[in-house]
Amino acid sequence: MKKAGIVMGSDSDLPIVEKAVGVFKELGIPFEVHVYSAHRTPDEAQAFARQAKAQGFGVLVAAAGMAAHLAGVIAANTTLPVIGIPCKSSVLDGLDALLSTVQMPTGIPVATVAINGAGNAALLAAEILALSDDALDVRLEEKRARDREKVLGKDRDISASFR
Amino acid sequence: MKKAGIVMGSDSDLPIVEKAVGVFKELGIPFEVHVYSAHRTPDEAQAFARQAKAQGFGVLVAAAGMAAHLAGVIAANTTLPVIGIPCKSSVLDGLDALLSTVQMPTGIPVATVAINGAGNAALLAAEILALSDDALDVRLEEKRARDREKVLGKDRDISASFR
Amino acid sequence: MKKAGIVMGSDSDLPIVEKAVGVFKELGIPFEVHVYSAHRTPDEAQAFARQAKAQGFGVLVAAAGMAAHLAGVIAANTTLPVIGIPCKSSVLDGLDALLSTVQMPTGIPVATVAINGAGNAALLAAEILALSDDALDVRLEEKRARDREKVLGKDRDISASFR
Amino acid sequence: MKKAGIVMGSDSDLPIVEKAVGVFKELGIPFEVHVYSAHRTPDEAQAFARQAKAQGFGVLVAAAGMAAHLAGVIAANTTLPVIGIPCKSSVLDGLDALLSTVQMPTGIPVATVAINGAGNAALLAAEILALSDDALDVRLEEKRARDREKVLGKDRDISASFR
Amino acid sequence: MKKAGIVMGSDSDLPIVEKAVGVFKELGIPFEVHVYSAHRTPDEAQAFARQAKAQGFGVLVAAAGMAAHLAGVIAANTTLPVIGIPCKSSVLDGLDALLSTVQMPTGIPVATVAINGAGNAALLAAEILALSDDALDVRLEEKRARDREKVLGKDRDISASFR
Amino acid sequence: MKKAGIVMGSDSDLPIVEKAVGVFKELGIPFEVHVYSAHRTPDEAQAFARQAKAQGFGVLVAAAGMAAHLAGVIAANTTLPVIGIPCKSSVLDGLDALLSTVQMPTGIPVATVAINGAGNAALLAAEILALSDDALDVRLEEKRARDREKVLGKDRDISASFR
Amino acid sequence: MKKAGIVMGSDSDLPIVEKAVGVFKELGIPFEVHVYSAHRTPDEAQAFARQAKAQGFGVLVAAAGMAAHLAGVIAANTTLPVIGIPCKSSVLDGLDALLSTVQMPTGIPVATVAINGAGNAALLAAEILALSDDALDVRLEEKRARDREKVLGKDRDISASFR
Amino acid sequence: MKKAGIVMGSDSDLPIVEKAVGVFKELGIPFEVHVYSAHRTPDEAQAFARQAKAQGFGVLVAAAGMAAHLAGVIAANTTLPVIGIPCKSSVLDGLDALLSTVQMPTGIPVATVAINGAGNAALLAAEILALSDDALDVRLEEKRARDREKVLGKDRDISASFR
Repeated sequence: MKKAGIVMGSDSDLPIVEKAVGVFKELGIPFEVHVYSAHRTPDEAQAFARQAKAQGFGVLVAAAGMAAHLAGVIAANTTLPVIGIPCKSSVLDGLDALLSTVQMPTGIPVATVAINGAGNAALLAAEILALSDDALDVRLEEKRARDREKVLGKDRDISASFR
Repeated sequence: MKKAGIVMGSDSDLPIVEKAVGVFKELGIPFEVHVYSAHRTPDEAQAFARQAKAQGFGVLVAAAGMAAHLAGVIAANTTLPVIGIPCKSSVLDGLDALLSTVQMPTGIPVATVAINGAGNAALLAAEILALSDDALDVRLEEKRARDREKVLGKDRDISASFR
Repeated sequence: MKKAGIVMGSDSDLPIVEKAVGVFKELGIPFEVHVYSAHRTPDEAQAFARQAKAQGFGVLVAAAGMAAHLAGVIAANTTLPVIGIPCKSSVLDGLDALLSTVQMPTGIPVATVAINGAGNAALLAAEILALSDDALDVRLEEKRARDREKVLGKDRDISASFR
Repeated sequence: MKKAGIVMGSDSDLPIVEKAVGVFKELGIPFEVHVYSAHRTPDEAQAFARQAKAQGFGVLVAAAGMAAHLAGVIAANTTLPVIGIPCKSSVLDGLDALLSTVQMPTGIPVATVAINGAGNAALLAAEILALSDDALDVRLEEKRARDREKVLGKDRDISASFR
Repeated sequence: MKKAGIVMGSDSDLPIVEKAVGVFKELGIPFEVHVYSAHRTPDEAQAFARQAKAQGFGVLVAAAGMAAHLAGVIAANTTLPVIGIPCKSSVLDGLDALLSTVQMPTGIPVATVAINGAGNAALLAAEILALSDDALDVRLEEKRARDREKVLGKDRDISASFR
Repeated sequence: MKKAGIVMGSDSDLPIVEKAVGVFKELGIPFEVHVYSAHRTPDEAQAFARQAKAQGFGVLVAAAGMAAHLAGVIAANTTLPVIGIPCKSSVLDGLDALLSTVQMPTGIPVATVAINGAGNAALLAAEILALSDDALDVRLEEKRARDREKVLGKDRDISASFR
Repeated sequence: MKKAGIVMGSDSDLPIVEKAVGVFKELGIPFEVHVYSAHRTPDEAQAFARQAKAQGFGVLVAAAGMAAHLAGVIAANTTLPVIGIPCKSSVLDGLDALLSTVQMPTGIPVATVAINGAGNAALLAAEILALSDDALDVRLEEKRARDREKVLGKDRDISASFR
Repeated sequence: MKKAGIVMGSDSDLPIVEKAVGVFKELGIPFEVHVYSAHRTPDEAQAFARQAKAQGFGVLVAAAGMAAHLAGVIAANTTLPVIGIPCKSSVLDGLDALLSTVQMPTGIPVATVAINGAGNAALLAAEILALSDDALDVRLEEKRARDREKVLGKDRDISASFR
């Protein structure tokens, strides 16, 4: 299976990124984690993106806050699918990161998920990798079924408690 | 190659969707186009999503405006990657559609692109399909190079005009 | 009297929903509470809505956060009046849920109340049920009078304290 | 059948309100239309709301823009269900009217629909009145089926055009 | 001197209102404080506004949150100048109250101050009353001078601390 | 009677300001109109404000767009009541001007009206001047009554047209 | 004198950029204009920024819309002062570009001006270059004086027209 | 070397301003710190700006919250480059200060940095002063390199921890 790559713009994004790591481990997806800043380490961010295809990555996930350019910089340097996680910082509740990540001009797409939505970023990466990996596809569908069962269990408990 | 499926919530979204169609044609990607409303035809939207994998689709694109639930409904009924295009309607400049599409709760991801960003939605779909299609991967990289040349041509013209 | 149905998209919405439960109890309105997710349990959400009329419900209340599709999904599957409560989640202060709930396209209305406004959702449900239940109508008017008295009592205390 | 009442805050809201009138005519619902301003004719707005129940109204619809207080003023003076239509004016795309209408404090609910969403306001009123009128309920369900057929017809045409 | 009237929509606004009370006391302006809700006690709010001119009030201050209609209701029932204080509630940081207060339609003005800006509401009331009270005018100018001195004192301390 | 002063930050604000001029003429209030920019003519703006009280002004109205500092600069240099009109410019629909005008820090109040709300600015100025001018007070109340009659006339026409 | 460099992300930004060109010509500042996209020509954008200091540039101006990363990319590759112009595109009125440009993380500053504010971008560049060019400093002060005179001329005309 | 001047509108902005002070000390840039309010001490703010050039300042930094006029007032009274720091206050997360600072009308530019972005304000000031100070330019480039090394160190630690 191809690897998933996770890049965060600052080590302060690590608590968000760890939700993606958890999903990758749960689904048995190989991954690497990196800290590259679009602004403070532009060369390394660019080099990572340019070599990603050759190094066995199939999908890249980029997490950043504020004027979140990281996903765009990664996407500008590869034709691998790039998933962007807008991270909430100390002001504006992540709206700045959301607009900086999702409003990409035509030519360079970034697949944007919810603010701080690292779990969904990893699931989306898994859906992409599962297109050529039937075993992962089965694990994804099993996870969906488990999530469904959890909600139905909550329904049984809560609906009963109000009867 | 697997097919791309495009679903729009209303035929009024067709002018936006046609930008995606153009990219699919340019890149030689087989596709289907449908009109299903998350609210007015929930059964058909659900059925389309559930049968998509079996019918040879590899990625689905959903375009909708206002309280744009279509991409979420599609995504809830398949583990194929689903790309959401928030469409601008007569008020709020598409902010309602953007938040309705991107802010998905954990478990059901939607890969969201810019408001009215149908061209990038198709490019993202192409990047996903290219993971298992080397010829498409080459065509994508060639398109990137052409886009780059266009910008550099503009630079030559405009920088010269101010000299 | 017909029943009121309350559905929440996640058990994390329970503290909000309990304000609605309190109003239903105060007004003597029979109700059921359920947890169904528009995305993780689409079949159960749909089935609940489709059977609601036959099972004696007169009005449905749906509470959800983020890209809050639950009220829309319920409304798409019944012609009973559906009331939506946009719930505040960890970012954006509930604006995403408000726009996802209120900006419904023509054909499928959702009666939206304030962000986290579960008390008013229950009062609105009561007003709807009271149209064919004179005793409930009296209880509603009595509650209005009590609320009015509470404000006037506060006015007496506070205006006196500044004299 | 009880009547529906429509109140607009200014005659400039008439083009919006006419969409509601169209739905009421299509569904055979008796209605009245009035122009009362929460600010310029507070007495008449209040009197209308207070007498509505006695005069045979079952549901009231209020349309207003800017600091849209009309629905709230109507709701403060009756326990009939009140539906608010936030109207877009020359600035802010109706966001001011939306927040002024939907963010009602606990005690006085307003069932808010989308900005300029007069069609849905009328449908919601119909759903409320249909709770005690089986013939209207049938007409509502028939309208739903017609709306569904329209979307499916669009799907047939558009999906064929791209084949 | 004419009196200033302060009305709050809920006793939960009292901590905000107390900043206005402090300014009125500092400037020797007679005032009354009331709790009237635009929605729960519409008659009392209206009666207060209608009698205000006759009862010796020269300016009215209204503080409310969420869909803040109180200042508008007061203003609709008097031609005295009415000052609105939008109060922050649990969501949206007071933006709903600000737009509900300031975006009044032509004919009924509300003099709006900053979110939670009760101190400035009282100063504005004082400026209005000072137009026909030279002693108050002097006290206002003296307060301005004191405020200026405070800033200059801070400047001396802080600029010195960095030398 | 004291005069009203109108200041606009740019002659492009003149179409907005003319609505205020119309109200002043209708109510027989003496006024002057000036163009002073908070940024391009700070000395003249300041001098105008400092001399206003001595020159017979009783209230000042300032209209400006974008980072609308004009009302604040005027208010910083006089204790006369200052009314701010946030003007819509080419982007952001006047939200920038609204926040720049209304969010004044404690000590220097600006009485803010709606975006482009010059008519209400003039009415508010009239209410302030009427506190010490009984004839103006009568004219204001008569204008209110005329406005009310206009709405009621519209109600008669429109309600009849739907009967 | 050092040169000013103007970079736009797309030739569609040219009408905005021309306002900056006009100011540079008026003030006699040498400049170059380029089209480089942060996303479609990342190498050329980076190379331009890295060589700018050696090639005699003293300040760089970058104009871009949507997820406007251009100014950030330029700033990440030089320690010359970089001025960002957020450009309005077809949705959101430039708010996306403003937040993408101004909310830079610590370490890489971008001097942001108003949405579409190319004239001020050029003036700011001029102020920076004037620090080491006394003749330019004089021309800047003369331009200020001319702008002031224009406003005062408007004041004379307009104040007279209302007398 | 010319001095940098820092002005804050209120001593409550001091914790933000201290980040700028830290950068100036790290880079060996002489600076002064002042507290001047655009509204409460307009004369002193103006005098400071007018004398700044003669007193050896090369760049001015202004920090203020709410309707943040300070940077604009400073900029209106000098042709030195002025950098504005919008400060977050108790509501609206600094959006009011951002728009009040950045949306300056043509003629008077303010170089705006991120909300609370005092570190970048100081770096931008340093970049401006470094244009005529080669030693500072070297220190700036060294700081860039150190920042880059910090990120790369984080990458080594974090990427290793997930291997």
